[in-house]
Amino acid sequence: MTKEEIVSLIRNVPDFPKKGIMFKDITPLLANPEAFKAIIDDLAALCKDKGITKIVALESRGFIFGAPLAYVLGVGFVPIRKKGKLPYKKLSIEFDLEYGKDIIEIHQDALDKNDKVLLVDDLLATGGTMSAAIKLIEQLGAKIELCAFMCELEFLKGKEKLSAPSKSLIVF
Amino acid sequence: MTKEEIVSLIRNVPDFPKKGIMFKDITPLLANPEAFKAIIDDLAALCKDKGITKIVALESRGFIFGAPLAYVLGVGFVPIRKKGKLPYKKLSIEFDLEYGKDIIEIHQDALDKNDKVLLVDDLLATGGTMSAAIKLIEQLGAKIELCAFMCELEFLKGKEKLSAPSKSLIVF
Repeated sequence: MTKEEIVSLIRNVPDFPKKGIMFKDITPLLANPEAFKAIIDDLAALCKDKGITKIVALESRGFIFGAPLAYVLGVGFVPIRKKGKLPYKKLSIEFDLEYGKDIIEIHQDALDKNDKVLLVDDLLATGGTMSAAIKLIEQLGAKIELCAFMCELEFLKGKEKLSAPSKSLIVF
Repeated sequence: MTKEEIVSLIRNVPDFPKKGIMFKDITPLLANPEAFKAIIDDLAALCKDKGITKIVALESRGFIFGAPLAYVLGVGFVPIRKKGKLPYKKLSIEFDLEYGKDIIEIHQDALDKNDKVLLVDDLLATGGTMSAAIKLIEQLGAKIELCAFMCELEFLKGKEKLSAPSKSLIVF
């Protein structure tokens, strides 16, 4: 399967979640086993030889890529979740959205200073959530080796907001 | 790794999400690569020889098990999401929670009558959400071969509510 064929499985949905936004719908790609496998294998290839010990992924679409990556690389999986979802002792961080604020959380015992992290999400847009996630991970003393994205909306310049190295498989 | 060792990685958190509930926290298990791999492989073994064509998983913890299963089995992945998250044409279903109601959704083009589905989630409790998910899948004409859970709270009798066959790896 060529990269063009994979990209063609990402569907543009106009005016979602609101008027004027062209949403990248990844569900046709997820439904295609060959494309999904290629994406996971390519993400895994980005971080080989980096000694990754944990995959950290953002709720919820990040889980769809982070969990298979943890399986393939044979490392632990750590979820960052929205406020109120994690049951144990946790760190929280508030960050700005276009309108209003949001909070994400991680368990305090999820990572320590010996961990080398691959932080993964489906899409890099403005980078706000990912930037907050980087701070949470750093507060636990872990090192972020790479932020990896299936795709990136380059015109939103999210990469400039990230204080850790990042790579994206597909750039729009 | 023995089954007892795996089960010992599920942490009991009292009074979450509210007083009187003993929450099963699976994050220590997810952080352990050997345990996570064993769970995914055991879930995959439940449905071999069933000709599964799609894994359907429920947002969001179901994604953590469903996505690696889709990868391992080489079949497509289909998310069922909470209201307002899926961008394309969709089917919705409302169902009762202990207090109030909730809505879950699936894309209309996610499945058809040729699909044989493994429906997966982390935990079977009262079965309310899973029962609604079964109806969504059946409305699209697909056949549910199996509902698979990492763990099950047997005393809540969720299994009795499901109109499709189900199996759980760990029963509390």
